[in-house]
Amino acid sequence: MSECVFCGVVRELQKAETYRRPSGGAYRKISALPASVVILGHDQFYRGYSVVIAKSHATELYHLPDAERRQYLDDMVRVARALDQAFRPRKMNYECLGNTVAHLHWHLFPRYADDPNPMRPIWEHAHAPGALSDADREAVIGAIRKQLG
Amino acid sequence: MSECVFCGVVRELQKAETYRRPSGGAYRKISALPASVVILGHDQFYRGYSVVIAKSHATELYHLPDAERRQYLDDMVRVARALDQAFRPRKMNYECLGNTVAHLHWHLFPRYADDPNPMRPIWEHAHAPGALSDADREAVIGAIRKQLG
Repeated sequence: MSECVFCGVVRELQKAETYRRPSGGAYRKISALPASVVILGHDQFYRGYSVVIAKSHATELYHLPDAERRQYLDDMVRVARALDQAFRPRKMNYECLGNTVAHLHWHLFPRYADDPNPMRPIWEHAHAPGALSDADREAVIGAIRKQLG
Repeated sequence: MSECVFCGVVRELQKAETYRRPSGGAYRKISALPASVVILGHDQFYRGYSVVIAKSHATELYHLPDAERRQYLDDMVRVARALDQAFRPRKMNYECLGNTVAHLHWHLFPRYADDPNPMRPIWEHAHAPGALSDADREAVIGAIRKQLG
């Protein structure tokens, strides 16, 4: 049995800034919050896209104890607010899916004025992954951290 | 200026079981919870698909006062748990988008063992809307209400 990939990410990012993916590339930590670890999304087509991973392994929100679930949702909203303050999107999209990796994680997608398909979910717009330069990636992470306080 | 469509839905469904859409068709109320009104999703391709509409008009979770936001998220999780208990899906998908109607509402999509595209968001699987017979619609609503208690 192999370990849940996000359990490994959570464990590593509580002691390191970067998680090297076995399949290549890396996850950069933005912050560790009370019930979650926040990473920068790999595809930065939607600037600031972040993923809020629960520290505990659970597949559904209703499987977490009430207090931990509320803290996890508070963490998620705190990150969404920080993205709003850092980048001033037109709208935020909040998605907890877990169809591929069934360990609770929120996708937070800021949607901007120049969005190519603004009225629809991001999944209906095929696009090449958005890549940031090293300097720009650090600027994005820094801007989010500043708002997280 | 026209009123926000979901403000009208919330107002009507606090005193009625059905909201007649000006564009045709109707929304059926499942329940009114402390911070939300729950309706059955129009497209029942994903059986039990429900929408949890905030009673207050706000466009983002971080625009609601803390106590109201926590209640709204408690309501949403309560509905998700009820869908799980009623229909035993393989996975739940939780999405708060608001790209078209920017009044907070959660889409709760139960994903089943026979899902046609199980690893991906539902938006990547085009399909004809799932229609229920009147009797089946009442059975679905009744099953959710029973679990909501």
